[in-house]
Amino acid sequence: MSLSVTFLGTAASIPTPQRGLPSIAIRREGELLLLDCGEGTQRQMIRAGVGFHRKTKVFITHMHGDHLLGLPGLFQTMSLLDRKRKLEIYGPSGIKAFIEAMRQTVQFKLGFPLEVSDLEEAGLVCEEDEYTVQTSWTDHVVPGLAYALIENPRPGRFYPEKARALGVPQGPLWSRLQQGSTVELPNGRVVKPEEVMGPPRPGRKILYTGDTRPSESVVRLAQNADLLIHDSTFDEELAEKADEDGHSTAGQAAETAKKAQAKRLVLVHISARYKEPDLLLEQARKTFPRVEVAEDFMKINLPLSEG
Amino acid sequence: MSLSVTFLGTAASIPTPQRGLPSIAIRREGELLLLDCGEGTQRQMIRAGVGFHRKTKVFITHMHGDHLLGLPGLFQTMSLLDRKRKLEIYGPSGIKAFIEAMRQTVQFKLGFPLEVSDLEEAGLVCEEDEYTVQTSWTDHVVPGLAYALIENPRPGRFYPEKARALGVPQGPLWSRLQQGSTVELPNGRVVKPEEVMGPPRPGRKILYTGDTRPSESVVRLAQNADLLIHDSTFDEELAEKADEDGHSTAGQAAETAKKAQAKRLVLVHISARYKEPDLLLEQARKTFPRVEVAEDFMKINLPLSEG
Repeated sequence: MSLSVTFLGTAASIPTPQRGLPSIAIRREGELLLLDCGEGTQRQMIRAGVGFHRKTKVFITHMHGDHLLGLPGLFQTMSLLDRKRKLEIYGPSGIKAFIEAMRQTVQFKLGFPLEVSDLEEAGLVCEEDEYTVQTSWTDHVVPGLAYALIENPRPGRFYPEKARALGVPQGPLWSRLQQGSTVELPNGRVVKPEEVMGPPRPGRKILYTGDTRPSESVVRLAQNADLLIHDSTFDEELAEKADEDGHSTAGQAAETAKKAQAKRLVLVHISARYKEPDLLLEQARKTFPRVEVAEDFMKINLPLSEG
Repeated sequence: MSLSVTFLGTAASIPTPQRGLPSIAIRREGELLLLDCGEGTQRQMIRAGVGFHRKTKVFITHMHGDHLLGLPGLFQTMSLLDRKRKLEIYGPSGIKAFIEAMRQTVQFKLGFPLEVSDLEEAGLVCEEDEYTVQTSWTDHVVPGLAYALIENPRPGRFYPEKARALGVPQGPLWSRLQQGSTVELPNGRVVKPEEVMGPPRPGRKILYTGDTRPSESVVRLAQNADLLIHDSTFDEELAEKADEDGHSTAGQAAETAKKAQAKRLVLVHISARYKEPDLLLEQARKTFPRVEVAEDFMKINLPLSEG
């Protein structure tokens, strides 16, 4: 079950020659989850080789232009490329009105069904067979949502040698045990799944904050995340400005990662003033060593742990 | 009086790694005229070193998303960079409603005055001391306007030797003659400007078609243009598709340049199917040899002719 994260745009507010406006592509098997969709996202998708036809959900963190102005162009390009599949869009209250306004004032033919959801409350956003997407409110200057992709736990590892030792013949009974059912053998012996399998293995968890000051509700949602992608607009010297503008410093992002016991931290939403990310990296590392500063097109593969 | 044209985006409909969505920056002395503003234009402006603070007018050819979806992001970036100066936007009917819808549904503070004009009729769009902008209707699938920047003629060259031969003393009388006034010398002799100056020298003319099938009204507006920037979405084999979609082939663009007696032709709005522009160039050259296919960031300087 492949899972990768590609950073399509890592700039804050204003793009630079190196950094596009915010967007992150999570590819999970055949599916695409797009986190934010700043202006230029469709072109970054083309550059990164992210397709326009797969099952796709888009999650918008908040209603600032730099996080959502790529949507209408994305719709247009998907239509021109003959997408027929439904596209799901989630965002805070206002996302529906924005999309409706675009459809009424820009001339383009939408070639596929759009399903747009204004999220009035934080919590469960969507539930698939193998994962859920959940949100918490962030602490920004406008209402903002952090999104977490949380995979369901997988059944524990199956130990064939234990099954054989208990006299369970290879075949349908093995499958039933692997699916979590207790089985009865021909000799009347009852075998429970936990006798032949390890403990359930946790799924993977990725959290993306969007724009936010340090936030306790983000810390809670990010607990034990395999990957925490956090606003890191400024360095420590600009902590006051970060607070004023509703953003985090690199050190504050690291503090959140530490509190959440995240396994890995990636800093995004990098102000154009930082030509090189060294200062941000250095400040974050003091608190949380497993940190990187995202670059556009950086890709992280998150393999399943054998737990 | 410097005048340059920088191609910020030369793609058709869908961007490619090499070509951004349509936008052209004309820089005339301190002023910027932006022709179309596709998604990503602000980032192309940053890459090309086009500033956000100068006197600026934006001209939108038609209401298709790929020609105007860069506007809201441009407004946001200009505001973040503390632009205070008025920004003028011109476009066909609908441009006002689009901008109003953006302002109502996306959260951003506009830091400067926006002056938006729905152009209901073709003709004179704006008149400055030294130039006018004029339009004609194009032949696209939605109402479209071609824009022409037309510099006013400059006074003819002044010949000091002729003035001296007529006994006009260097000083205020020379200035008055240069400004087009008849003067009387102390000895009663009357000297007319044409006695000491050459004929008026024509200003420069640039025409941008936006999306269009071959169009007689474009040919008329483009008469004697120094630079004709023409839709060239397809090659000759796709003439039928071009007609269906309201576009031109490279050969048709060349035909228009020839009929208009333009001095130079640049092909834009290049379909993503052409990885290399050789085919388009070859087909256009047969009819109009002084042709180029635009690339993103290509810059053309148009010096004043000494006429």
